[in-house]
Amino acid sequence: MTLMDITLHPIGVIHSPFTDLADMPIQPSGEASASGTLEIFPQFSAGLKDLEGFSHIILLYYLHKVSRMQLTVTPFLDSEPRGVFATRAPVRPNPIGLSVVLLQKIEGNTLFVAQLDVLDGTPLLDIKPYVPEFDKRAEVRIGWLEHARGKARFTRSDRRF
Amino acid sequence: MTLMDITLHPIGVIHSPFTDLADMPIQPSGEASASGTLEIFPQFSAGLKDLEGFSHIILLYYLHKVSRMQLTVTPFLDSEPRGVFATRAPVRPNPIGLSVVLLQKIEGNTLFVAQLDVLDGTPLLDIKPYVPEFDKRAEVRIGWLEHARGKARFTRSDRRF
Repeated sequence: MTLMDITLHPIGVIHSPFTDLADMPIQPSGEASASGTLEIFPQFSAGLKDLEGFSHIILLYYLHKVSRMQLTVTPFLDSEPRGVFATRAPVRPNPIGLSVVLLQKIEGNTLFVAQLDVLDGTPLLDIKPYVPEFDKRAEVRIGWLEHARGKARFTRSDRRF
Repeated sequence: MTLMDITLHPIGVIHSPFTDLADMPIQPSGEASASGTLEIFPQFSAGLKDLEGFSHIILLYYLHKVSRMQLTVTPFLDSEPRGVFATRAPVRPNPIGLSVVLLQKIEGNTLFVAQLDVLDGTPLLDIKPYVPEFDKRAEVRIGWLEHARGKARFTRSDRRF
């Protein structure tokens, strides 16, 4: 199965004010997150029906500027090397990003969103409705991130990845 | 960009008691969800460092049994056709599944998890730590799912997808 090829194609493109990998918000919850738009390719329009009823959506996107993979990384929020699967760093074996963003309105094939932390021009792979009953967990332990609690709001990216 | 090919490779495989697409839990929060294991391929082991500190992890996986795409679907929780991006149905343009599961322990390359709703043999694409500060939202509207609130716990799949 290791050698299995899985081929995906973008359903649209993410437009944001972030044109440089440095100095970006590192999470959608960050103070520096911004408004932007998702342009959905016309052949997928019909899939957007009923989406406007949801206040929050989960975006899966292809981290297209990541050119390498690392199994251990020193994350923006830490000074210790960590296993990449214990971080949200982009240099993953499969560079898929995940962000929960606020859906403001839909006009035709354009979704207006806020709390966006994604690079301009990023290929969008999927949109899922954010449903607390499915996606929200209580009594959570967050390992090494415990000591970084609250820091993500104010931390911006640099050029390390 | 529509024609851009994005190629991914599994990092491991998900083992669960669910060997048939019918009669499965439809979400990890369901009563019928089960324990299972994630077998990570040895070449990715180093990426698991520090993961055990997290109680919950986000799995992204390839819905390998889905052989078609539909832009409108009638979901398990509804009797109306909905836009696929407003549902969690598997028949998506890019069939990537997302589940937040409970991480119980790690032994070598094997992760023991609970609250699993994934078919046995599913290729695993990514593991991310679940971090409430990044992933949890309050004051959420859930559109058509509002009237299905609570139903997901008790609903099982059938053969529609």
